[in-house]
Amino acid sequence: MNHQPSTISPSQPKIAIIMGSKSDLNVMQDAADVLKELGVDYEITVVSAHRTPDRMFSYARAAADRGIKVIIAGAGGAAHLPGMVASLTHLPVIGVPVKSSNSIDGWDSILSILQMPNGIPVATVALNAAKNAGILAAQILSTADEHLVANLIAFKEKLKQVVEASAAEMEK
Amino acid sequence: MNHQPSTISPSQPKIAIIMGSKSDLNVMQDAADVLKELGVDYEITVVSAHRTPDRMFSYARAAADRGIKVIIAGAGGAAHLPGMVASLTHLPVIGVPVKSSNSIDGWDSILSILQMPNGIPVATVALNAAKNAGILAAQILSTADEHLVANLIAFKEKLKQVVEASAAEMEK
Amino acid sequence: MNHQPSTISPSQPKIAIIMGSKSDLNVMQDAADVLKELGVDYEITVVSAHRTPDRMFSYARAAADRGIKVIIAGAGGAAHLPGMVASLTHLPVIGVPVKSSNSIDGWDSILSILQMPNGIPVATVALNAAKNAGILAAQILSTADEHLVANLIAFKEKLKQVVEASAAEMEK
Amino acid sequence: MNHQPSTISPSQPKIAIIMGSKSDLNVMQDAADVLKELGVDYEITVVSAHRTPDRMFSYARAAADRGIKVIIAGAGGAAHLPGMVASLTHLPVIGVPVKSSNSIDGWDSILSILQMPNGIPVATVALNAAKNAGILAAQILSTADEHLVANLIAFKEKLKQVVEASAAEMEK
Amino acid sequence: MNHQPSTISPSQPKIAIIMGSKSDLNVMQDAADVLKELGVDYEITVVSAHRTPDRMFSYARAAADRGIKVIIAGAGGAAHLPGMVASLTHLPVIGVPVKSSNSIDGWDSILSILQMPNGIPVATVALNAAKNAGILAAQILSTADEHLVANLIAFKEKLKQVVEASAAEMEK
Amino acid sequence: MNHQPSTISPSQPKIAIIMGSKSDLNVMQDAADVLKELGVDYEITVVSAHRTPDRMFSYARAAADRGIKVIIAGAGGAAHLPGMVASLTHLPVIGVPVKSSNSIDGWDSILSILQMPNGIPVATVALNAAKNAGILAAQILSTADEHLVANLIAFKEKLKQVVEASAAEMEK
Amino acid sequence: MNHQPSTISPSQPKIAIIMGSKSDLNVMQDAADVLKELGVDYEITVVSAHRTPDRMFSYARAAADRGIKVIIAGAGGAAHLPGMVASLTHLPVIGVPVKSSNSIDGWDSILSILQMPNGIPVATVALNAAKNAGILAAQILSTADEHLVANLIAFKEKLKQVVEASAAEMEK
Amino acid sequence: MNHQPSTISPSQPKIAIIMGSKSDLNVMQDAADVLKELGVDYEITVVSAHRTPDRMFSYARAAADRGIKVIIAGAGGAAHLPGMVASLTHLPVIGVPVKSSNSIDGWDSILSILQMPNGIPVATVALNAAKNAGILAAQILSTADEHLVANLIAFKEKLKQVVEASAAEMEK
Repeated sequence: MNHQPSTISPSQPKIAIIMGSKSDLNVMQDAADVLKELGVDYEITVVSAHRTPDRMFSYARAAADRGIKVIIAGAGGAAHLPGMVASLTHLPVIGVPVKSSNSIDGWDSILSILQMPNGIPVATVALNAAKNAGILAAQILSTADEHLVANLIAFKEKLKQVVEASAAEMEK
Repeated sequence: MNHQPSTISPSQPKIAIIMGSKSDLNVMQDAADVLKELGVDYEITVVSAHRTPDRMFSYARAAADRGIKVIIAGAGGAAHLPGMVASLTHLPVIGVPVKSSNSIDGWDSILSILQMPNGIPVATVALNAAKNAGILAAQILSTADEHLVANLIAFKEKLKQVVEASAAEMEK
Repeated sequence: MNHQPSTISPSQPKIAIIMGSKSDLNVMQDAADVLKELGVDYEITVVSAHRTPDRMFSYARAAADRGIKVIIAGAGGAAHLPGMVASLTHLPVIGVPVKSSNSIDGWDSILSILQMPNGIPVATVALNAAKNAGILAAQILSTADEHLVANLIAFKEKLKQVVEASAAEMEK
Repeated sequence: MNHQPSTISPSQPKIAIIMGSKSDLNVMQDAADVLKELGVDYEITVVSAHRTPDRMFSYARAAADRGIKVIIAGAGGAAHLPGMVASLTHLPVIGVPVKSSNSIDGWDSILSILQMPNGIPVATVALNAAKNAGILAAQILSTADEHLVANLIAFKEKLKQVVEASAAEMEK
Repeated sequence: MNHQPSTISPSQPKIAIIMGSKSDLNVMQDAADVLKELGVDYEITVVSAHRTPDRMFSYARAAADRGIKVIIAGAGGAAHLPGMVASLTHLPVIGVPVKSSNSIDGWDSILSILQMPNGIPVATVALNAAKNAGILAAQILSTADEHLVANLIAFKEKLKQVVEASAAEMEK
Repeated sequence: MNHQPSTISPSQPKIAIIMGSKSDLNVMQDAADVLKELGVDYEITVVSAHRTPDRMFSYARAAADRGIKVIIAGAGGAAHLPGMVASLTHLPVIGVPVKSSNSIDGWDSILSILQMPNGIPVATVALNAAKNAGILAAQILSTADEHLVANLIAFKEKLKQVVEASAAEMEK
Repeated sequence: MNHQPSTISPSQPKIAIIMGSKSDLNVMQDAADVLKELGVDYEITVVSAHRTPDRMFSYARAAADRGIKVIIAGAGGAAHLPGMVASLTHLPVIGVPVKSSNSIDGWDSILSILQMPNGIPVATVALNAAKNAGILAAQILSTADEHLVANLIAFKEKLKQVVEASAAEMEK
Repeated sequence: MNHQPSTISPSQPKIAIIMGSKSDLNVMQDAADVLKELGVDYEITVVSAHRTPDRMFSYARAAADRGIKVIIAGAGGAAHLPGMVASLTHLPVIGVPVKSSNSIDGWDSILSILQMPNGIPVATVALNAAKNAGILAAQILSTADEHLVANLIAFKEKLKQVVEASAAEMEK
């Protein structure tokens, strides 16, 4: 593996959103939507740890050299995708526990993503919280992107205004 | 990958015992011990899904061609080894949830091994039950080995006798 | 009990699928379907540990002599069928925890099948994962059946192709 | 099976205490001790559902005819003894979930004893609460034994006095 | 409190079914129905530990003298009714954890009924298993009633026949 | 019951600390200690819901008329004391779930205190958090006692200073 | 911060009901309704710990000086509002764990409100039990308000009558 | 709040490690140690959400302007520090659930950090996994620091070599 950055296409997004199954898309779309709202490009696809292990290996191994900076991986049940991708790259990996149909109230999804051994972290967000995974990915990029900082601050401001409007309405 | 059986060394054991960390050996040794008691050869080593993913890939992919018939894999916490090995081979894989020091009372180990998605089973045994993993591996081999059937029947007979001796003693 | 194989009818399937209640069939049918897909014959019936203990005893005790090689047993709640059958035969037993109507989110089904004591393993699969029980049974038979190995490899290949098709569609 | 009461020896106790393993005795002894305190005879032995299924069958099937009126059964992990005994007799069966070394904090013991299907009840007491199993057995016998009612009332009176003494001491 | 049996009306049932709230009736009716099927009379009413503590006290304290032999008590959430009734009488008390609307998946109902301290047992049955509570109550009475023994044996026989019919149908 | 305040002794404390068993004192002492620190008088004793139900009734029923304003009740396992006391008085009742030896990791203590039905609240604090129960009792009294407000503000100030000292030390 | 009571408007309610999100209102309305029934004024609004931290700070810091005596705070998921408000005021804070859409069966809501560290209590009520929060708030005020005591006693009386009516109906 | 970067001292570390209590240091030190190993400067201190809310506010609000790029926050029980800090800054916040003495087996620590509402992510790592928090913080910085990428790749290489050495030793 050659860790020297290869020539990266200018249109290459810095964020990759992957999921273990097409059926996870109804959850994972939230990550895509919030990244769009924050003005961050992404790529999105299906990578199954258990059904396409070779694809997972090559995808995770190649990600950094293609210019990916952060990988968001969602999976449910015995969810191995986020952790295995984290084992195959030095990039930060954000894990989204998906409460899929084969999950036991989400506990399996959470524990099999969160409880990674020392040495191989996965940045885990709440059950089904793909939106927060997208925001976290943007926060990570923003550590070197002042423009994105401004977008995040504006995003937080909007969250505040929604609450204040609710409060004003309820106090009436 | 060539699935034609290569020439297999006569001394090649049919059972492989692997574990995610050297520290799992105090649990996994029970699998080795019971296989020895049942007269079944085995090989044993460390293969970490997270710290040595390439090694895991090549080990799991090559196992069948080397003559391995059953793989016993033990791991704790977000335990991905049994499930990932199962994704990389058509062999039956037995998973041993290990209550390692980084485990939450064993729940993470159990759920991340047991709750595999449709298509990729892992034959999961009880928490820390490496002995049962060894017996199950022998049962699997015994489906084509009448000699091993006899050993298993004798093993069950001994279990019975221990209980009967306890009963006789307590009834006194 | 006579462990010498009796003359076994050539049409006797090697896999038995049993379940604690007729109502488990909507889950357990998946085991039958995948075995058919993999070209493996099976027999299927209802055996209740609690309501027909004698039937369970005679069924489990006779299974090996009839030519059964693997027993798949599904049950829910305080699910005793897989473990009791395992105590009555030397055959490998695969347990399917069923999330039946009297189950507490499946936890009782899982724990009462999985947590077998040392000496008597049950190869447990995920909650409601009868399909994986069928595949695991086929994997066990495949340890002495090269033709079945080929079918399993083809089955895995199809799983992969489904994911790749999803990926191609999502990347568009 | 002949349900006509056979001639029962006058020394036959009406309560049977059984347990899945000799190692459960340190918990189950409490049942014996409280029965002694309440003036109720008992027999006590080891019967393993998984290691001595035949013994369990014959023990449970014969119990009523021998004059047993209540069976107390303790077991841990995937604890099948109480439920299987209940399936084999019409006698009331009291189950004691034992937090044995192979148990997950007692949850498996509790759920695999408590969650019996409709038709086959097990009267479950608290984790490790063999003392309460003994008291409950005495309460059951007391429904037809005025002398035992008096003993139970005296027992409750003593419980009260211990608390009142503690209260008096603490209030000083 | 006078423990000498007062003159008991011949029509006084020996089983009392009580519940914490009218809304528990859809669960608790199963106890009544199975007792009817087994030929056992019962009385049924609402007694709330939390909303009618005086009523609970007088009901539980008077039950034995009225001729009640077994009390079945159902409740949900922080379910104190079975345990408090058990503290107020020497009669055997059967607790039915009800998965009421204010319960957390039934865990609170189970634990607050099951985990009684030493000295005060509650015979707990499965979540919502009022039918089993009824059977257990009949089993308790049957320890001094040969006619009821016969009814229980016939009841078990019918359970068996239902399974055998299901089995015959599935095997076709 | 006469709700007109009787003549209350000037030395009557306004806070009562009760517990289900003498063995809970090692936890419940923290409530007493913090009340002393805050300058609030208390009385402390043992009242068992299950072993001394009459005492519990009379204690809870009489508390308000004696001048008690807040009751702190600690118990473990199937902990019925706080909820039953709350059913017997209109006073605010604070429940302390105690992780006693018969508790399942504290879950039973928490759920059987917290999950009270509508109409009968118990103000539940964290597992073993008798200190917080004491503070909460003081906060309740402080709603009508400016002097106690000052003590509580000073107490919070000290908490802050301890953290600031730790911070200063760690930053060195 | 000036702890001298400022001049408080006579119309200022003594109870504040706040919630983390407008969507919590369908649960929290119960607190308002029962306070109305008990004749206690309240104010109600939205305060989000995570989206409006400044608003939370100023609201909690100013509450006591405005004349608020008790704060009821409801929130779900990682519910920080009750605990943070408790850290910012010396007033008693009642926490209502809300089973919101992003909650894992309510466990996260309960544990993140209940398990406060020593020094900063939150009076936690059952999952979604806003009604009990309202009653508890009234009980707290009633420690210095004899009129409210009478209302609470009447409220308890009504609870009793509803049960007695149910009992009379069921006994028919 | 002025989001224009102020002049930042060249010696200002980019990583802040904070914890809710001095007693968390035995866990949180691992974050510091691994950052040192990876060649990343950090600052470390105590900030309590509940005991020093003002300090938390000013610390979190000022962090970005001081030059901090990532905040690692560890806390136990009802752990509000990571989530509240995340609400007060646009920086990525890594949460470490600490299994402190007041935690229920770590479940409260995990859920109150992980289950953040939409809009305010916390990058949660495994229970007590401060080492992984440190690595994740370095991974985040490495998205704009090629030198740190090399250190992370070397770190992963060392993890691999340790496993390979264990494997070689076990295979002997």
